[in-house]
Amino acid sequence: MNFRDNELDPRPIGVFDSGIGGLTVLQELEIAFPNENFIYLGDTARLPYGSKSPDTIQRYVKQNVNFFLGTQDIKALVIACNSASTVLEHIDLPKTLPTFGVILPGANAAHQMSSTKNIGLWATRATVHGKSYEQALKKIDDQVHLTSVACPLLVPLVEEGLWDHDLTLRIFDLYLPSLKEAHVDTLILGCTHYPLLKNRLLGHLESKGWSLKVVDSAVALTEDVKMALSHKKIKPSDKKLGPPRLYLTDEAEHFKNVVRLAFPQWNKASIQWVNI
Amino acid sequence: MNFRDNELDPRPIGVFDSGIGGLTVLQELEIAFPNENFIYLGDTARLPYGSKSPDTIQRYVKQNVNFFLGTQDIKALVIACNSASTVLEHIDLPKTLPTFGVILPGANAAHQMSSTKNIGLWATRATVHGKSYEQALKKIDDQVHLTSVACPLLVPLVEEGLWDHDLTLRIFDLYLPSLKEAHVDTLILGCTHYPLLKNRLLGHLESKGWSLKVVDSAVALTEDVKMALSHKKIKPSDKKLGPPRLYLTDEAEHFKNVVRLAFPQWNKASIQWVNI
Repeated sequence: MNFRDNELDPRPIGVFDSGIGGLTVLQELEIAFPNENFIYLGDTARLPYGSKSPDTIQRYVKQNVNFFLGTQDIKALVIACNSASTVLEHIDLPKTLPTFGVILPGANAAHQMSSTKNIGLWATRATVHGKSYEQALKKIDDQVHLTSVACPLLVPLVEEGLWDHDLTLRIFDLYLPSLKEAHVDTLILGCTHYPLLKNRLLGHLESKGWSLKVVDSAVALTEDVKMALSHKKIKPSDKKLGPPRLYLTDEAEHFKNVVRLAFPQWNKASIQWVNI
Repeated sequence: MNFRDNELDPRPIGVFDSGIGGLTVLQELEIAFPNENFIYLGDTARLPYGSKSPDTIQRYVKQNVNFFLGTQDIKALVIACNSASTVLEHIDLPKTLPTFGVILPGANAAHQMSSTKNIGLWATRATVHGKSYEQALKKIDDQVHLTSVACPLLVPLVEEGLWDHDLTLRIFDLYLPSLKEAHVDTLILGCTHYPLLKNRLLGHLESKGWSLKVVDSAVALTEDVKMALSHKKIKPSDKKLGPPRLYLTDEAEHFKNVVRLAFPQWNKASIQWVNI
């Protein structure tokens, strides 16, 4: 704690997602900043958020933020969940706590990559209906045209670890036609579960001869957090105290298995249950 | 209320599911008993249950039962959810309240229909791991062999109203091979969402020349409740007070739309939000 007023701060960064998809963000951050400490919370008892209403998501996000503020001494908070990021403006957060959502970085990255300004969005129903990407893009450039597609089957595919299954391609085909019709040149993956499907999607697009640029909101968010750490908007840590501490709100063995399978580097990380 | 000690009882029957799948049970009951009144609770804010742990499901079921006991004057309770039925023995229920789960009726029906005693089960991960069907079948006949398949993609398909989409057939094909290998002659649909896919499945099986008998647990449960009403284990009502009152724990417009689409007979039913 005595680091707080100095140049260094070994306190952990909190990372939150409705499930385990946000672990892709945590993974990126840990590779880039090997001295930083992390606490991850996955609200697996109540996932998915993406099919639920703004009021319900807001209630859950408040409770999860209170977990970090009330029981964990964090120096920054990363909301690695698109559905949760859409309600962020309605949540009271301490002004002194650097907080990062996923929408703005994703919108910025897509705007930079797109030549035609015809951008596509794959996201959960909550994120599509929340219109946060649309609003963020319009603020950046009011010439942008966004085609949003709600893709509710992609999250269960990932949660079930089926990203290598052929069925995944058929489900992609369910969500691709409206992007094709709108002639988008850049697609935002607007859900932190989707990066686990990204390579599969790129291969599928290539096989169809479609050179769509794919923006990973999680990567864009990670870049924002990296920037804040590099510029010391978040005081860096010089002391790795151990692997990330992972908290899940449900005890299901299955999620632990998917974590072990997809992120073998955390085989020694403790995965604890917390009642929120 | 003064009917309570008489032959008639117009108080409603409570029907509970994690989502909207249990409405298939409600529909069956309402057709069979047009004078009965019903209250339905769908825990849409926390669905699905099927991927979650027994402890979490137990906590949710207790809270939902308390909603019925604490705020609604019901004469019977129907748990139209397989994942919830698997934890029923751990829930304190008033002995005077007739309560119906979905496991035993489904197991009984499958046992009666199967010639080979090689039975298959499609269900959520929670129901498969809970082994309730296995235990129920073994109690009925220890010669039964059950092949259980967890089918986590079927619930999102139904929740998204995609039951008529071709993708559904590909997802069936994901879950059929182990039944084929085990030479089952009867398949239990062990999730109250699945009946909405039943006709599609029967057509698909027919196109493959496979005459599998399909047991719908929801129908079997409905038969049990009908029996109890017919035998006056539940005192019947002679007065329909209105359409069922539907409560959802999430406000999402989308679920209301799926309800309106799949169950047009309740277009005038009130759908209310309740915070549990």
